[in-house]
Amino acid sequence: MSRVAYVNGQYIRHKDAAVHVEDRGYQFADGVYEVCEVWNGQIVDMPRHLDRLDRSLRELRIDWPMSRQAMEFVVSEVVRRNMVHNGIVYVQVTRGVAKRDHFFPGSDVAPSVVVTARSASPAVAAAQAEKGIAVVTYPENRWPRVDIKTVALLPNVLAKQNAKENGGKEAWYVDTDGNVTEGGSTNAWIVTKDGVLVTRPAESGILKGITRAVVLDLVAREGISFEERPFSLEEALEAREAFVTAASTLVMPVVRIDDTVVGNGHPGSVATRLRDAFHTATDLKAVVA
Amino acid sequence: MSRVAYVNGQYIRHKDAAVHVEDRGYQFADGVYEVCEVWNGQIVDMPRHLDRLDRSLRELRIDWPMSRQAMEFVVSEVVRRNMVHNGIVYVQVTRGVAKRDHFFPGSDVAPSVVVTARSASPAVAAAQAEKGIAVVTYPENRWPRVDIKTVALLPNVLAKQNAKENGGKEAWYVDTDGNVTEGGSTNAWIVTKDGVLVTRPAESGILKGITRAVVLDLVAREGISFEERPFSLEEALEAREAFVTAASTLVMPVVRIDDTVVGNGHPGSVATRLRDAFHTATDLKAVVA
Repeated sequence: MSRVAYVNGQYIRHKDAAVHVEDRGYQFADGVYEVCEVWNGQIVDMPRHLDRLDRSLRELRIDWPMSRQAMEFVVSEVVRRNMVHNGIVYVQVTRGVAKRDHFFPGSDVAPSVVVTARSASPAVAAAQAEKGIAVVTYPENRWPRVDIKTVALLPNVLAKQNAKENGGKEAWYVDTDGNVTEGGSTNAWIVTKDGVLVTRPAESGILKGITRAVVLDLVAREGISFEERPFSLEEALEAREAFVTAASTLVMPVVRIDDTVVGNGHPGSVATRLRDAFHTATDLKAVVA
Repeated sequence: MSRVAYVNGQYIRHKDAAVHVEDRGYQFADGVYEVCEVWNGQIVDMPRHLDRLDRSLRELRIDWPMSRQAMEFVVSEVVRRNMVHNGIVYVQVTRGVAKRDHFFPGSDVAPSVVVTARSASPAVAAAQAEKGIAVVTYPENRWPRVDIKTVALLPNVLAKQNAKENGGKEAWYVDTDGNVTEGGSTNAWIVTKDGVLVTRPAESGILKGITRAVVLDLVAREGISFEERPFSLEEALEAREAFVTAASTLVMPVVRIDDTVVGNGHPGSVATRLRDAFHTATDLKAVVA
């Protein structure tokens, strides 16, 4: 079977999926995106992802490329046509194709939309989660509007590549106050040496992660001791455990920060418990694809 | 005649010029670009533009998509095939097409290259320069690596759009020290009330403009009183004149900053002199397309 992508109204072979060179996503990073997990044939938390997409589009004043209902159908259809049982579905919306000019084009220019999907083995992620990952710190150097999920991801690319070249799987941004803001493509969490789960508020300075929100629900349900506040790198280095969350990796334990081993160097009990709870909850709540 | 673009090894009709949806330029803003002026059939300062392209590529560790000599040929050929006598030529290079993943792809992934050209009327630009433009200030909110000419231009798009909606043609970024850094797509200059031409050093915090460099040559040749240093918005509001420089607009007088009229509200003599000198110099020095 060949992969299929949805591009501006058509389902086409993934290898032929193309956009015009003057799509503003290509020349100006003038677009937004979402990545949803597909788990056991279900698109996890699609309503929350589309809510966030709606917010991103409104912040940039890009119109929806179709009705929300149509978007739900297209996203589900791309998953179905690619026979993705476990994996991800990716949605990107840009301000459309126009003669290159920084200013917004006229209202006659329709937004562009691309939806792709691919399978990923849950076994690979599970194996990774059993070992945990290393993160490598990086000075926060992004613009302040990281609360919008834009495709202007070059700073994140460079931070994550730096992590990889230093033995890590993720970057942790540290701001000038010495606080961890978030990961290169994840939210950051610690369990303090006193056993309190901590993550930064998502009002500004970080992206309001969907997986983060689901984990917060689980934390409340499971009665885990929790504080929503900034935490410093110093505090993280002394933490009992640490982890990151994202739609593509869910709850992923962190066992090393730069050269410092976190806790006993193995995935922590809170991370493991939340990871297990996540899929139980997902099985109950997810929208059927 | 239909327009022609060069995309990854082929000259194709501009309307068919497309890149894959997984080009990293589209999904990550992982690419760089140059815009060169075409003046009287000549590509202005192509060597300096390709020097800067080389620096941008090296900073991001993207390989050249072809030899520099081949790039010179392709750029000239796109100008020739589009019969551009006056206008611009645009070059974009990205890290290529790969399965979506923030980390750099393997060395088997070739960079992507797109070259387009279009005509523009010098009369329109000249008429604009005779009137001058308004600029609208905007808080500096870009990442620190604005010295690299990347396509992660969304912040610039938003700043320039704000300028437009407030009656301006350009945004002027003002940093937390109250200094003007640069325009949304131009370098910023003033002539102080004491008659000294001032522009900010291009070591960091701004892009090292090619037109800026040419103007600096002209300033030296013409013996204009000049200081290279940061200037504040306050100083700019009291300036005798102001202007911006870019390959696409050359020297463009600024006659209003927010609600403040600059000088007597007409283009200043230094800006006008430099604009005239620019094309005289260009006619002598430009590379023949």
